[in-house]
Amino acid sequence: MKVKVILTFLLLTTCFAVFSQEKHNTAVVEKGLIKVSVMYPYAEGKTFNVEYYETKHMPMVAGFLGSNLVKYTIEKGVASGIPNQPLPFMAIGTFYVKSLSDYQAAIGPNRDAIRADFPNYTNVTPVILVSEVVK
Amino acid sequence: MKVKVILTFLLLTTCFAVFSQEKHNTAVVEKGLIKVSVMYPYAEGKTFNVEYYETKHMPMVAGFLGSNLVKYTIEKGVASGIPNQPLPFMAIGTFYVKSLSDYQAAIGPNRDAIRADFPNYTNVTPVILVSEVVK
Repeated sequence: MKVKVILTFLLLTTCFAVFSQEKHNTAVVEKGLIKVSVMYPYAEGKTFNVEYYETKHMPMVAGFLGSNLVKYTIEKGVASGIPNQPLPFMAIGTFYVKSLSDYQAAIGPNRDAIRADFPNYTNVTPVILVSEVVK
Repeated sequence: MKVKVILTFLLLTTCFAVFSQEKHNTAVVEKGLIKVSVMYPYAEGKTFNVEYYETKHMPMVAGFLGSNLVKYTIEKGVASGIPNQPLPFMAIGTFYVKSLSDYQAAIGPNRDAIRADFPNYTNVTPVILVSEVVK
């Protein structure tokens, strides 16, 4: 009886651990993915509400992308890495997608809704970089 | 005897799976880390050798950072995400570190060596953004 309980416990733990591990593996492999980075330049008088961006804007856009979206990240600009130079960007939001054409097809019909949300968190026009993850 | 063998096998599998999972966890948790992004702007006549950057320059800089470095990434600019706008950056190299002051302390004494390597892969001066991973 005791042995059966131990066996069952170990089996469940193994399954759980292996399952969790697999989830992490898929999150780690980024090489070859396409990054779409939406970069908000800093300038005098420009503002950016990170909280709104994180809780409302990015989840909305992510929702348009479906299974093409592998993950998305948000970073908040802190400083320029070069002394006496201004902060280059206040914030950057990045979508890691498998296919650029699928990304464009998903964003196209929703572009107006996305742009209409800009004034809710910023008064600056973003720069967008499409790049490929090399490493 | 058979039960003991099964028990031992399951125990080893569990330990291995849990151990592997922990390794992946540390690679995935980025929130709160500091990103130092070295961004190479695109302009007419500017060049960038991704292969040299990936195989020589970035490993050299990474070597200066020690255990403060969690990971580093390289991306190659492909296009602007906005029609009729020029490519914003040819490439971006990013260091994910635990401490900005430790990063600065490690880079300081090696700044000349790092800059002396620039002409080996590019003729443009990078912009550097220090940011905090929000999500």
